[in-house]
Amino acid sequence: MHEGMTIGGISFDHVLPSDIEKNSFAIIDKELKEKGILVPEELIPVVYRVIHTTADFDYVNTLAFSEDVLAKADEALRNGAHIVTDTTMAYSGINKRILAQFGGEAHCFIADPEVAKEAKERGMTRSAVSMEKAAAMNVPLIFAVGNAPTALISLYEEIQKGFRPELIIGVPVGFVNVVPSKELIMSTDVPYIINRGRKGGSNVAAAIVNALMYRNKR
Amino acid sequence: MHEGMTIGGISFDHVLPSDIEKNSFAIIDKELKEKGILVPEELIPVVYRVIHTTADFDYVNTLAFSEDVLAKADEALRNGAHIVTDTTMAYSGINKRILAQFGGEAHCFIADPEVAKEAKERGMTRSAVSMEKAAAMNVPLIFAVGNAPTALISLYEEIQKGFRPELIIGVPVGFVNVVPSKELIMSTDVPYIINRGRKGGSNVAAAIVNALMYRNKR
Repeated sequence: MHEGMTIGGISFDHVLPSDIEKNSFAIIDKELKEKGILVPEELIPVVYRVIHTTADFDYVNTLAFSEDVLAKADEALRNGAHIVTDTTMAYSGINKRILAQFGGEAHCFIADPEVAKEAKERGMTRSAVSMEKAAAMNVPLIFAVGNAPTALISLYEEIQKGFRPELIIGVPVGFVNVVPSKELIMSTDVPYIINRGRKGGSNVAAAIVNALMYRNKR
Repeated sequence: MHEGMTIGGISFDHVLPSDIEKNSFAIIDKELKEKGILVPEELIPVVYRVIHTTADFDYVNTLAFSEDVLAKADEALRNGAHIVTDTTMAYSGINKRILAQFGGEAHCFIADPEVAKEAKERGMTRSAVSMEKAAAMNVPLIFAVGNAPTALISLYEEIQKGFRPELIIGVPVGFVNVVPSKELIMSTDVPYIINRGRKGGSNVAAAIVNALMYRNKR
């Protein structure tokens, strides 16, 4: 390990910026093992990165993966799938430099004036309309929803009409319709990574996208 | 309450988009009271918004406020304080339309090429250098740090040299030096809102900034 250092009378670990992530993952690994929790090898990059992003070990119990979802995500990314988010925060958190190396692009239509206009006219959320707009794009698509249950409901309705995204990362957070919106996506045959329950967030959505990319990069 | 509706055999609450936040806050309030937890009236807008953003009730036990910090934040905002974040995600999450109504602006220098160059030369994190750059601006400043403990250490060092921000929102998340970086800021005489422990995040930083603005707006 590293030597310590003291700043203002408080002890810090001396860790190189480039080692912070590695050290954090080692701490997460150690603490999970101390709790007797073993995460399947294949899921470690995703589960540990979500814990790294939230410092919340609850995610180890609630993250849900459809069958073979990682292999399917790998294939989609390598085929240059585009990523669609429901929030500018999730969009911001995605490593777009790496995504471009796979030939993909990231999109968020929440601030699109047309989306706002249509949402108002139809009495819907902008999140829901932004998903419809994305679903109409003619490229393989991965959705990363970190905020709006209505975005997941909108995707479900598109799926009922025959739309087939490559993957839905469904991690909206909150207290109103969040839990059933996740169940709805899990009831489809679309590959998913969902965080069951109320927790999630734009940061979690971005972390999962990045985890999927990084494991393909290394 | 609202009537329910069923989508794909799953029950949802029928809630107008404009009512989602209000309903969420009511649920948070009810569940806290069921747990026997009373949040001081003045702190409710901040604490409840953080729980709303994370669905994590732990924050009620860990958010720490320096004396009279809300009154000081109000004054800073009304004086047109600028907000500086350590991540583009936190920057994205801040309601810049409302901030502009107070005469403020939001800044994030993490992606500034000069910052990257200087960080490399000095063997520091870009987060730390971006704080120094911000501290040199000649306007009242509120810092919202949701990711990097090194950003808080950098601010501490600037404070030792005489810098006086209006407020530090210190909610970095993680496993390496996060806890002591928060203690360091709490050891100064600068007004703070800190989340003790490992938890926090860019989403939490943005939520606190927004909560401070909304309570002045209403």
